[in-house]
Amino acid sequence: MRIAVLGGTGHIGMGISLRLAMAGHDVVVGSRLAEKAQQKAEEYTCILKERGFSSKVKGKDNSEASKIADLAILAIPFSHAYVTAESLKEDLAGKIVVSPLVPMEKKGKLFLYCPPPEGSAAEKIASILQNSRVVSAFQTAPAEKFANLDARIKWDIPVCGSDEEAKNTVIDVINSIDGLRGLDAGPLAVSRLVESLTPLLINLAIRNKTKDLSIRFV
Amino acid sequence: MRIAVLGGTGHIGMGISLRLAMAGHDVVVGSRLAEKAQQKAEEYTCILKERGFSSKVKGKDNSEASKIADLAILAIPFSHAYVTAESLKEDLAGKIVVSPLVPMEKKGKLFLYCPPPEGSAAEKIASILQNSRVVSAFQTAPAEKFANLDARIKWDIPVCGSDEEAKNTVIDVINSIDGLRGLDAGPLAVSRLVESLTPLLINLAIRNKTKDLSIRFV
Repeated sequence: MRIAVLGGTGHIGMGISLRLAMAGHDVVVGSRLAEKAQQKAEEYTCILKERGFSSKVKGKDNSEASKIADLAILAIPFSHAYVTAESLKEDLAGKIVVSPLVPMEKKGKLFLYCPPPEGSAAEKIASILQNSRVVSAFQTAPAEKFANLDARIKWDIPVCGSDEEAKNTVIDVINSIDGLRGLDAGPLAVSRLVESLTPLLINLAIRNKTKDLSIRFV
Repeated sequence: MRIAVLGGTGHIGMGISLRLAMAGHDVVVGSRLAEKAQQKAEEYTCILKERGFSSKVKGKDNSEASKIADLAILAIPFSHAYVTAESLKEDLAGKIVVSPLVPMEKKGKLFLYCPPPEGSAAEKIASILQNSRVVSAFQTAPAEKFANLDARIKWDIPVCGSDEEAKNTVIDVINSIDGLRGLDAGPLAVSRLVESLTPLLINLAIRNKTKDLSIRFV
């Protein structure tokens, strides 16, 4: 499957891009600037080669990456996410779009979940990308550890979506990544229950002097 | 430590009462009716004896149980919880009170989190029990498996509270229970992030054809 990781030059995008490529997917890193995307794609291809993977990651601007992909992941910093989604509306029509977005606020040392009036970031994205098949996932994958290919991970990834076929495709993609298990968490209307895990995980990590916490359902 | 498990005759109360007694705590089961509490306490004492524990669980009405305890757990069905807390205001003054409460709504097959205007059930309880030291915990311990002493459990229990000393006491109590790890999740103001885990866990269990899901932070 051809997967665009929009904003794939950033932290969460790096882990997703590398691990998807390792799982055999055709990965296109997207960025605002094609040049930056190409540069990162080359860097990722090198990292993969060093580990014995011959997969070649491509780099395109976000619009081009969206157009050629079957599935796009919005690995965009939250502050630009809605605006970027708006600008890619046409390019992403008909595609499966994955939102790992989490609207958060910091109050002192405390992270809080601040969903938009739509109920969750994923529902807001769905309201912008009305012709896309929006699914939410990856909110609980800590970026740094995800990007560290030496880290042994064993995480559960809850997946929300109201388009069952699109959701199952995303679950299959997640299960293809070594160390991840995708789990159906319900329709997009309950994405807030998953998005709110992220500030919980950050608060727990800070207060218990650890980092990169993720989740397993047992 | 003497711990009152108010509503300890119900499902979540059973697991908490038995496992606290096994950890060596002096457990008082509370119920609306002293007689029902005594009956359950005898039943629990028998179960413990069969497993080689000599601890004797006591049974009292909720008011009496609250008065003699150092710490009380509100293992009360959600529908009566606020009213019961109101009626025990005087008895629980100065005590550490643990809220495992989760306000939920069922919409079709879907469980949703419905916090009160205070922000969370725990904050609502704190607004009722203004002279108690309210801490929230145990929301993610599935009742049936918790009560099944043959079940091997290895769960993380996030704990919220704004009274650090009370919160640390609750974390110590949780850590004394075999198979549980208590983790500081922040002040009571973020209890909603923990309470909303419960509908997520139920939705995940239903959709992935499993049951009794809990959580581990990895």
